[in-house]
Amino acid sequence: MSNPRSNARAILEKWGIKNFRVIDKEAISEITLGASILATGGGGDPEIGLLWTYKVIDEGKEILMVDPIDVPDGIQTASTACLGAAIVLTEKPPSGEVLNLAMGRLEQYLGRPIQATIPLECGGVNSPVAYAAAGELGVPVIDVDGMNRAFPELQMTSWVTHGVHSSPTVSVDNRKNVTVIDTGDDDVLAETLARRVAMAYGGISWIATYPLTGKQVKETSILYSQSIAWAVGRAVMRARREHLDPIGELLKSLKKERNVEGFRVFSGKIVDINRDFGSETNKGFTLGSVTVDGIDTYKGQTATLDFQNEWLNLRIDGKVLCLPPDLIAILDSETGEPIRTDIMKYGYRGTIVLIPAHERMRTAKGIEMFGPRHFGYDLDYVPVEELNSDRR
Amino acid sequence: MSNPRSNARAILEKWGIKNFRVIDKEAISEITLGASILATGGGGDPEIGLLWTYKVIDEGKEILMVDPIDVPDGIQTASTACLGAAIVLTEKPPSGEVLNLAMGRLEQYLGRPIQATIPLECGGVNSPVAYAAAGELGVPVIDVDGMNRAFPELQMTSWVTHGVHSSPTVSVDNRKNVTVIDTGDDDVLAETLARRVAMAYGGISWIATYPLTGKQVKETSILYSQSIAWAVGRAVMRARREHLDPIGELLKSLKKERNVEGFRVFSGKIVDINRDFGSETNKGFTLGSVTVDGIDTYKGQTATLDFQNEWLNLRIDGKVLCLPPDLIAILDSETGEPIRTDIMKYGYRGTIVLIPAHERMRTAKGIEMFGPRHFGYDLDYVPVEELNSDRR
Repeated sequence: MSNPRSNARAILEKWGIKNFRVIDKEAISEITLGASILATGGGGDPEIGLLWTYKVIDEGKEILMVDPIDVPDGIQTASTACLGAAIVLTEKPPSGEVLNLAMGRLEQYLGRPIQATIPLECGGVNSPVAYAAAGELGVPVIDVDGMNRAFPELQMTSWVTHGVHSSPTVSVDNRKNVTVIDTGDDDVLAETLARRVAMAYGGISWIATYPLTGKQVKETSILYSQSIAWAVGRAVMRARREHLDPIGELLKSLKKERNVEGFRVFSGKIVDINRDFGSETNKGFTLGSVTVDGIDTYKGQTATLDFQNEWLNLRIDGKVLCLPPDLIAILDSETGEPIRTDIMKYGYRGTIVLIPAHERMRTAKGIEMFGPRHFGYDLDYVPVEELNSDRR
Repeated sequence: MSNPRSNARAILEKWGIKNFRVIDKEAISEITLGASILATGGGGDPEIGLLWTYKVIDEGKEILMVDPIDVPDGIQTASTACLGAAIVLTEKPPSGEVLNLAMGRLEQYLGRPIQATIPLECGGVNSPVAYAAAGELGVPVIDVDGMNRAFPELQMTSWVTHGVHSSPTVSVDNRKNVTVIDTGDDDVLAETLARRVAMAYGGISWIATYPLTGKQVKETSILYSQSIAWAVGRAVMRARREHLDPIGELLKSLKKERNVEGFRVFSGKIVDINRDFGSETNKGFTLGSVTVDGIDTYKGQTATLDFQNEWLNLRIDGKVLCLPPDLIAILDSETGEPIRTDIMKYGYRGTIVLIPAHERMRTAKGIEMFGPRHFGYDLDYVPVEELNSDRR
């Protein structure tokens, strides 16, 4: 099949869309920083994806973002992402070739062209990847995603909890190996297969997944997820330039963009890291728990966090303060830079911020599929704003 | 894509082929018995596949076998088979629907119709499956296979050792899950992926694989593999009816059909079975070793055999007498029925027969890919006729 995609601007003209945002290097660096903060300790190293997106922009490939409301109902979209243990990524960098391969084989399997991309999650790798892919593929990117955070498994999306599916998913690697996974409505099996394929490939795969129509995108996505990440990143960057408190600016940006309260609950120093299951990458996940001793006004208190790629639970002095799918970020107090589960070390200092998950992640189906019990914790989900009601 | 297959007789007419054999119930029972003997202890329970093939024949679906030499060079063929731990099969029986799904998706991925099937191996499951599939799909079956024995891994074929590949392979299950595996010339990765997919499906998968052209079939297959299995099965069945020695008749049939000498080397009783790696099915293979104490003229001698689904090595009193890819069969001395690795029990009595592998399995590439060192044994391959030259 010849490449049916043209370029993003021509596609938008065809749809009669005049309002769109051009993503330049400044924009992508802000979006990526914001997405990394929302990534809840996961999502991987932003540098690799950012450098790739800069290269795409330098090559004159336009990256255009559109409002989901403007997207025609009938068009075919899909998400491109990296799936595997983020720690392996530094050895196996991305390329336009592999993404074009994945997207092309998905189009071949679907029998129709893909006319826009939808970011999968907010994360240091997959956020810039979504934009680089849009530029490489010559299609617009829609201002949505499936999580507005990062999560360890492919089915943990607002898409699945609202009745649409990841199948067919195409998984490829740098050596041009291709696997097409089509499990119908069994999204957990699709995740199991995609994970095993990534491991067989050597730890990392590039996927084209969630082939949704424009209508499905509007009805099941986290709308304006990209704008939220962009606002968060812009606020933190401005705080750096103007020597303001980055955490305070971040919380203000969330209030303004999403009308939600975030919570600054702790500052401390990492004193113990327990990575589970022998090798941290042998199941395709980074797993374990971490202990943080309080500093400054939190001196004498202890925070503990469990993680599976992303932070899952936060306890302070044994009291549960945040449960999935609500968001946890440990941020450098001076720069607002997130401390990720895959790079944290003994002695790192940071401030812990809690953010309510998007409402489309908090449905009964969402709590069932990625609430605390799903991850093996004997705890009922309570919204972060209730657990921290004394902090308002 | 609508089903482009018609029926086997119409296809043969189109090719101008007038010579073919109609496979009836007697034929398939003989072929399956012979294939089970050649399956080297593996290949699974013949009953399920046989019953299915009888049903296909009862439904009036013709099964026609053609000489590979008559097949046009340009046609597209493929192999259908069961991949997984044979022991799971009794819980998850086959159906025409899953094979049609697998073949249909392979045709969709290739973009061309499949006009004939090629059996993958000689085995209790996959031999009748190849015939049932031909009947269900309405295409002829070609008198070849990729092994003329059974082997534990998908890449262990004369096809791969002669430069053609298993990709793309489509793997499906009873719940209509579909995975397309396309690893180009990396047949070992294709096996790894196919095995992981089968395990994720619950232990068993149905595959459409090795999409070869007619020319490739002729140049790389074990030619007349089906005729060999048929001759062996017919000989043993006749021995049963006429109260002849089934082992002697089997050896005569091999001499006549293939012009090779087989060796009757041992009779004994299984006294110890060591199944490795905890669960015999958790890696997708039946693994271990077995000890057989000699009876009758072999009293006082001890035979040991290693297996991985199939028998691999035979030692008698420590002396190596057979190495892969040469064939080992343990047969009931009265009936000639093979004793398989997945059903053998303490106390089973049998006669051990050794058969030289087909020449296309004994190339340097073949020894590299499925000789003793590949299976982890520090032994150089020596042909079975040299190891047993004193028995001629």
